Amino acid sequence: MLTEEELERVCVVLVRARNPSNIGAAARAMHDFGFRRMRVVNEFPVPFEAARSAVDASAVLADAVVCASVAEAVAECTLVVGTTAVGERELRHELLPLAEAAPRLRAEVRRGGAGRVALLFGSEKTGLSNEELSHCNWLLTVPMHQREGARHLSMNLGQAVAVCLYELVREQGTAPAQPHTAAEGPATAEQLERVTALLGEVLEGSGYARRHAANSEPAQARRLVRRIGMDAVDAPVWMGILRHVLRRLGGARGDQNGRGGS
Amino acid sequence: MLTEEELERVCVVLVRARNPSNIGAAARAMHDFGFRRMRVVNEFPVPFEAARSAVDASAVLADAVVCASVAEAVAECTLVVGTTAVGERELRHELLPLAEAAPRLRAEVRRGGAGRVALLFGSEKTGLSNEELSHCNWLLTVPMHQREGARHLSMNLGQAVAVCLYELVREQGTAPAQPHTAAEGPATAEQLERVTALLGEVLEGSGYARRHAANSEPAQARRLVRRIGMDAVDAPVWMGILRHVLRRLGGARGDQNGRGGS
Repeated sequence: MLTEEELERVCVVLVRARNPSNIGAAARAMHDFGFRRMRVVNEFPVPFEAARSAVDASAVLADAVVCASVAEAVAECTLVVGTTAVGERELRHELLPLAEAAPRLRAEVRRGGAGRVALLFGSEKTGLSNEELSHCNWLLTVPMHQREGARHLSMNLGQAVAVCLYELVREQGTAPAQPHTAAEGPATAEQLERVTALLGEVLEGSGYARRHAANSEPAQARRLVRRIGMDAVDAPVWMGILRHVLRRLGGARGDQNGRGGS
Repeated sequence: MLTEEELERVCVVLVRARNPSNIGAAARAMHDFGFRRMRVVNEFPVPFEAARSAVDASAVLADAVVCASVAEAVAECTLVVGTTAVGERELRHELLPLAEAAPRLRAEVRRGGAGRVALLFGSEKTGLSNEELSHCNWLLTVPMHQREGARHLSMNLGQAVAVCLYELVREQGTAPAQPHTAAEGPATAEQLERVTALLGEVLEGSGYARRHAANSEPAQARRLVRRIGMDAVDAPVWMGILRHVLRRLGGARGDQNGRGGS
């Protein structure tokens, strides 16, 4: 993850974006991943009003700066990286796939107070022109799936911005979400053994054991229970269910822990 | 990267998508990263015509299948993963950040011929409901930037699909180990749904449902079954056991497939 200060040092530059809803979509993606600095380079007035309808994009759009040229937009940046679809034009720049580009971009924004990075996105229709690319130190591309005979690919602008910014903050080992809490761990062997015992009684009581003797041997029932990955918190629920079933099937045995199953 | 065959084994399921342009955007992201199988679960006719204006999305949309329920959409899948914004609701599932979820998803589609993965995306407005989440084996989230005091975040649907699929094909030469052989693979969602339906009948018939109503709601029973990792070869055994129990508990219902549970 990038710190607030580092997020501030990344500038997303939209060059000749034609569709206001795409500007709004790009702003929303910036908001989602914590980026704030947008520059828009356009020859005609930018239809920000239309873009502002985009959910969650308002703060980013309110601070967006309209620039007359790419040079102006990237003036304070120490690293300028253009995004391009492979095969889009004659490339005279170093070209990195996004996953390899991201560590370089992060290294620059982490380089003390001076590092500022610009990420350039071209128009939906034509991408970045050669003149615009000439402002870039190097280029990155989002690898896409190329089928034989298909025309060259380019991504939707909002999706391209979302994928690039996701990769920038992706970094392994910094995951905020918790996979499991301690309480949610797997059931203990002891719990599983009790489940197995109760299951054995149910197999007997329901008549299943008479019909499917091989499946009902204690070792087989144990394997059956061990093969399911039961969580510790769920074990009492399953035992409760099995006890209810036993009580209905045949009386008093359901209240005991069972024949042991082993 | 995934092979053509592996890409075919991933199914993107859009549940209650409200905006045709978002369906088109999701299809375009699928196209860009090489995925082809889309399922759309909607109660009203899906406005595919409007969605078809999305650039590059036509092949995906032409093959899209409209399903009446989540259960139908994921029936043939061996791993069903829901996407969610953190804090969206009370989570009763294991939740992984996208970067950690992707290797698990890839491992499943690489597991011989049998592995099929469904990725569920909820409505733009409300995400996936608890009932819809109950069909999932576990959940993934795209980590976003949370500012103090800000309302909870959710991504634009097309951008969320793009980021998830990008991560799925991202991989830097790290082929994950295969956890299962084909014959030992997990049960399909359809099998688990049948187990869930039978379990629901057992909960009713045994009196458990009257005593523990909260544990016995269909969505809760479904979660209980999804949380155990049931193998395909074991599913018929468990169904046989449950049918025997049902026959003993109360007569003829044990021979049917159950009340459906969905």
